[in-house]
Amino acid sequence: MTGLDATSDWGLIDPGAADPTGTADDAVLAAMVDVERALLRAWGSELDEFLDPQADALDAAALVADPGTRTALRDGVRRDGVPVVALVPALRAQLEAARLATDRLHLGATSQDVVDTALMLVARRVLGATRDSLVATGRKLAVLADAERGSIRMARTVARHAEASTLGVLAAGWLDGVGSAVETIDALRYPVQFGGAVGTGTAADATAGRGGASDTVRAALAAKLGLDDPGRAWHAERTAVVAIAAASASAVAALGRIGGDAVQLSREEIGEVRLATAGGSSAMPHKRNPVDAVAITAAAVEAPAHLQILASAAIAGDERSAGRWHAEWPALRRLVRLARSSGIAAERLVAGLEFDRERAAAIVAGSGAAGTGPDREVLVAASDRLVDHALARFTRIADRSEQP
Amino acid sequence: MTGLDATSDWGLIDPGAADPTGTADDAVLAAMVDVERALLRAWGSELDEFLDPQADALDAAALVADPGTRTALRDGVRRDGVPVVALVPALRAQLEAARLATDRLHLGATSQDVVDTALMLVARRVLGATRDSLVATGRKLAVLADAERGSIRMARTVARHAEASTLGVLAAGWLDGVGSAVETIDALRYPVQFGGAVGTGTAADATAGRGGASDTVRAALAAKLGLDDPGRAWHAERTAVVAIAAASASAVAALGRIGGDAVQLSREEIGEVRLATAGGSSAMPHKRNPVDAVAITAAAVEAPAHLQILASAAIAGDERSAGRWHAEWPALRRLVRLARSSGIAAERLVAGLEFDRERAAAIVAGSGAAGTGPDREVLVAASDRLVDHALARFTRIADRSEQP
Amino acid sequence: MTGLDATSDWGLIDPGAADPTGTADDAVLAAMVDVERALLRAWGSELDEFLDPQADALDAAALVADPGTRTALRDGVRRDGVPVVALVPALRAQLEAARLATDRLHLGATSQDVVDTALMLVARRVLGATRDSLVATGRKLAVLADAERGSIRMARTVARHAEASTLGVLAAGWLDGVGSAVETIDALRYPVQFGGAVGTGTAADATAGRGGASDTVRAALAAKLGLDDPGRAWHAERTAVVAIAAASASAVAALGRIGGDAVQLSREEIGEVRLATAGGSSAMPHKRNPVDAVAITAAAVEAPAHLQILASAAIAGDERSAGRWHAEWPALRRLVRLARSSGIAAERLVAGLEFDRERAAAIVAGSGAAGTGPDREVLVAASDRLVDHALARFTRIADRSEQP
Amino acid sequence: MTGLDATSDWGLIDPGAADPTGTADDAVLAAMVDVERALLRAWGSELDEFLDPQADALDAAALVADPGTRTALRDGVRRDGVPVVALVPALRAQLEAARLATDRLHLGATSQDVVDTALMLVARRVLGATRDSLVATGRKLAVLADAERGSIRMARTVARHAEASTLGVLAAGWLDGVGSAVETIDALRYPVQFGGAVGTGTAADATAGRGGASDTVRAALAAKLGLDDPGRAWHAERTAVVAIAAASASAVAALGRIGGDAVQLSREEIGEVRLATAGGSSAMPHKRNPVDAVAITAAAVEAPAHLQILASAAIAGDERSAGRWHAEWPALRRLVRLARSSGIAAERLVAGLEFDRERAAAIVAGSGAAGTGPDREVLVAASDRLVDHALARFTRIADRSEQP
Repeated sequence: MTGLDATSDWGLIDPGAADPTGTADDAVLAAMVDVERALLRAWGSELDEFLDPQADALDAAALVADPGTRTALRDGVRRDGVPVVALVPALRAQLEAARLATDRLHLGATSQDVVDTALMLVARRVLGATRDSLVATGRKLAVLADAERGSIRMARTVARHAEASTLGVLAAGWLDGVGSAVETIDALRYPVQFGGAVGTGTAADATAGRGGASDTVRAALAAKLGLDDPGRAWHAERTAVVAIAAASASAVAALGRIGGDAVQLSREEIGEVRLATAGGSSAMPHKRNPVDAVAITAAAVEAPAHLQILASAAIAGDERSAGRWHAEWPALRRLVRLARSSGIAAERLVAGLEFDRERAAAIVAGSGAAGTGPDREVLVAASDRLVDHALARFTRIADRSEQP
Repeated sequence: MTGLDATSDWGLIDPGAADPTGTADDAVLAAMVDVERALLRAWGSELDEFLDPQADALDAAALVADPGTRTALRDGVRRDGVPVVALVPALRAQLEAARLATDRLHLGATSQDVVDTALMLVARRVLGATRDSLVATGRKLAVLADAERGSIRMARTVARHAEASTLGVLAAGWLDGVGSAVETIDALRYPVQFGGAVGTGTAADATAGRGGASDTVRAALAAKLGLDDPGRAWHAERTAVVAIAAASASAVAALGRIGGDAVQLSREEIGEVRLATAGGSSAMPHKRNPVDAVAITAAAVEAPAHLQILASAAIAGDERSAGRWHAEWPALRRLVRLARSSGIAAERLVAGLEFDRERAAAIVAGSGAAGTGPDREVLVAASDRLVDHALARFTRIADRSEQP
Repeated sequence: MTGLDATSDWGLIDPGAADPTGTADDAVLAAMVDVERALLRAWGSELDEFLDPQADALDAAALVADPGTRTALRDGVRRDGVPVVALVPALRAQLEAARLATDRLHLGATSQDVVDTALMLVARRVLGATRDSLVATGRKLAVLADAERGSIRMARTVARHAEASTLGVLAAGWLDGVGSAVETIDALRYPVQFGGAVGTGTAADATAGRGGASDTVRAALAAKLGLDDPGRAWHAERTAVVAIAAASASAVAALGRIGGDAVQLSREEIGEVRLATAGGSSAMPHKRNPVDAVAITAAAVEAPAHLQILASAAIAGDERSAGRWHAEWPALRRLVRLARSSGIAAERLVAGLEFDRERAAAIVAGSGAAGTGPDREVLVAASDRLVDHALARFTRIADRSEQP
Repeated sequence: MTGLDATSDWGLIDPGAADPTGTADDAVLAAMVDVERALLRAWGSELDEFLDPQADALDAAALVADPGTRTALRDGVRRDGVPVVALVPALRAQLEAARLATDRLHLGATSQDVVDTALMLVARRVLGATRDSLVATGRKLAVLADAERGSIRMARTVARHAEASTLGVLAAGWLDGVGSAVETIDALRYPVQFGGAVGTGTAADATAGRGGASDTVRAALAAKLGLDDPGRAWHAERTAVVAIAAASASAVAALGRIGGDAVQLSREEIGEVRLATAGGSSAMPHKRNPVDAVAITAAAVEAPAHLQILASAAIAGDERSAGRWHAEWPALRRLVRLARSSGIAAERLVAGLEFDRERAAAIVAGSGAAGTGPDREVLVAASDRLVDHALARFTRIADRSEQP
């Protein structure tokens, strides 16, 4: 156990962000190394040089296997305000150990190019996995909606019985939210960053001895990393970050709504919904808590705050801001982690979610609002149309390939 | 002067949201009447009845001309939690005064249908006007970028001299943000809401005696109002609201960045930028304050908070939430007002903004970072490409018709 | 009806902030006039001059009775970024109309002195009224707690039956929150602002021909307005604003918790709580919505965002910030308005709130958690102690004089 | 290197929260063990039993030394939604290994008692350390203010030259903010939590066979941990958490203001301030970035969002909320970490901060606002008074013992 553990957060008090896969510091570091590696390859084509050996020699796993690296990088962040100043010598040492040339490493790039591009990689990967969870969640909701299209229940507005609807419509409404979340994620672009010191790319141009070299290197870098080429640097133009943040928060909210409804409707007095997943209590051995719904709700309480941070940080300043940019890193990482964790918890939640048709029907029968609503025939026909629409819409969204 | 004025906010302490045009309560009320009017017409086609006279008789201007109406509506909000319960009788009275039938008024609709659709109308109109301001702002920035592509200045990162760039690149960077804001607004959809009591549309279906009538009325309503038909109700599925909020906040941030840079660069010691607009001081008659930039900055400080509210409210609950939905109204209205006011202030700001080439060049010449950057030739070539790219991108975005 | 109305917000879509009494623009304007008036009197003692006639001649009511004044002030805000530059000539005209000397008006003050002090006056008055509502709410809760100390109910944790408690303990818990809110408000200080152009008070010192004159005028100003004398200017030191914001948000949250619990526990399936207040529905005539609880919840969803704005704005900058200060005004006003409106709605909510002992007992009897909790005797004894403690604590807090 | 590291955050992208000392998961875990330990001792006195050996046997260090413990606890959080359900068996195993009785462990407590009390311990410790940093920062500012009371500089309002002030007044203004932050922290109370399953303490009463036993155990627990005894449980009454959050955010904002001003005033064109600390750049070897000010600013951008989360979470619900409470943990931990990290960075920042009197005087001499301000004599006298006041106020605040 290294000394670093005592200063790290390993998940003791974080149920809303329980799954750090792909967003933990090691994964962010690996993404930074991916960027430096792809940059070497991108330069290889621009310069007509063979830089693949150098790229191959860069190894994130080796970095973290070395006990001192994390400490050095973290100290570098404190000293330099960015992790890249300390990262580059560590990578250079890997090249030197392999007896490879080091002069092309990090060429034409500045710290922001590496951090921004790495965070875009992280966001794309993690939101891709989140999309998978959303689709899996949606497929289960579609089955539920389909099965319960004729199961009458009492719809509630402003926390009061309103008029009858169906359990199918309830599930279809949740499904609509999941579909919208997928749609919002699918509309995102994840731009590569490569602007050099101040966004003009002149170091790249000068190195290549060719105006526009920075453009071709950036395009190659984007292609190698599977990111978008925005055709420019965006050091101080953060619209793409806000869009990713908004999509992540939308996904968390769509799931948070399901979690909140599921908790309410599974209260003992209501009981339209039953939840399989259940956590223990340290004081009440008989108790089973709706842990997945709680985790989803905790994430939903928190996520909008990070969206706010990122919208504030977008105001930037100068060619690179003095603090606002730095505030983006933990907020963006946290937001995609919340989305990912919510997605996983939601998959589990709906996998174990069952409707109680009898209880739902009994509530309608006993309600003071029972006689005020639609005829059953009209309602079931409407339910059919609503469920069909939701299923068709979701299938259309879910099956659309992410890449055109 | 009516007693109502003493309880209204008329703009005394609100420089960041100085322009309430299109978002003030009278405008929101007018939009609600627009919705009820269009709904009558939509029913006219569905029911094969001639409802245009009824629609014509609904008159928002007459409502506010009657001194008691605003009071009655405001009291209605306090009593019912929504303004529509009190609005419908006021509109019914207009029909009765015109000796017209009243039974089709508000038919099949619930309060949320009217409020949500009216706020979508308000958002579409106001963000449309904001787009115009963004485009006007962008066109001026494009002229500046074009004119200053060869004017050397010192780029600053982390509040320090970094290396030389050009004033053209600075303006092009601002322009990129404005273009992204326009693009984000153009991608929005403004859905009509028409779900009836609990989102199933059964009252509409039953009235028409035809399953699916609610779908055709909703589609007709959307067409008449120039809104999108989402194919479903979205009473508790608020993704569209979050998207509009995020776009508004992005626009405010893009302008806030320009305002912030303009304030910094026009400080007496820097002086690369001169601002024409200037407000007075109550203590220092000699002083001229950068009022438009201040207003833009105030809006930018505030806007992300409303985005946070709307992302939180999106968690909804039940078929209509008990408070979260209600919290959306002032937040969404405020956010589009901030966007609109920022747009107007930004138009004025850039119209009066001038670069001081000599001062910019002198700063470069005197800087400790002067010798470290690119050759002038490389820089100017890069500046040319960056400016050309920004101009072409902005023109492509700005000239794209909003409607496909 | 003036043209200004069309650009004002008069309460159409604002259930969460339904009561603008004391916070509407006219009230803020009146507070500004109060400040200028008190400043004249404060100067009267410092300069050994008789300035009461001038002070008496300043008349906020006359300002708003003049149709053009609001327009002029609002236009002034747009032009100058602050309302005071346009206010001072309007007040000077009042002095001139009364044939009184004008040279002592606004003497030694800057716009920020007037705006900050006026907003402190508004906050103190409105939070004072909020305190009254909290105390009235608490007194009713105390009666409920006392009456229901032996009424068994099922306590719920993580949305699940946990073990038995009492309705008295439930009310006592709400009361604890109300008491804490009063305590937090009582701990506030509302500082006067009088620093002159840049916070040094030199104009006041020079006018009086005496070093330290600014200190004595500030102290006199504080005394005349019933505010605290902080012993210094706080143009860029905004801790007091954050404290007021946090107290307001705490009050809104304490009430929001009651509103949320009341809504939940009055759901038809639970029914431990009955709410008297009820608003109508435009689609469902039979329906009665818990409007006060909804308004309280809407305020609680919104308020934390304004606290966030004010904590962000506190970062200030220079001797007066360029936008952050301006963003404070609507946020602070809004936050105290939300507190006041929540207080009024909560008074009404608890006045009409009844517990259903039989229903509460029946839930316990039917619960799977019924046999797991404490013996009834132990519980009732604990309930007695908890209720007694809450009552004593609240009485101690509520009866403490606000002024030592 | 354990597998856990790959899923932990060790500080790669977090300059604004660079110092996790006292807030990292191991420290939170140690605080939880402290609580269980103190609870055993508190029971010892209530039950007239000797429980010190059991308390001594609980060992947080041994827990983290066992490679599997962190994994087990983190998995427990995912399974149960709280870490305590998995913690108690781990502690029981320690007792069993020492052949000690286990039946008094966690007696009468629920998970929330342990988590809330542990987080109060963490907050008190970390804000205590933050207070030390604030005082150290203030003492250096006091020296600067004292030394520069006669050094003329140009005060700036709304980003424009306003009128002359002194460098001493500038430092005194920063000092005022630091003093207010200390005062705000000193006013905090950190309540112990001990309510049992639903806040009534009946399990404790029943175990002891004495009504009110829960009160005496809670009081003893508070005394042993150095926390406040609130006289009641506060499972759903979160005012104390909001107060701690507001104080933390105020401290971050006070420092953020200094960081922001320091960055501005040390820009090359202004140069009134020089900063010793400086970080490197990966693209520009000549560049020295104001890293401490950047870290402070990043924290200040972020902190208000966590305050917002905690004010939202305070709305709670039921006897323990389903998600809102869980959202508090990372937000509160993060907020005190930001305060602590900002404090450390600020100490470093001001330790290396120098004023350039000549440059400050030259700016005044060359300013268009030069002739408009006060006579030098009046100004210096005012500066003397302002500096004296700030020094006296800070000394009074800083020297006040934390414990009455």
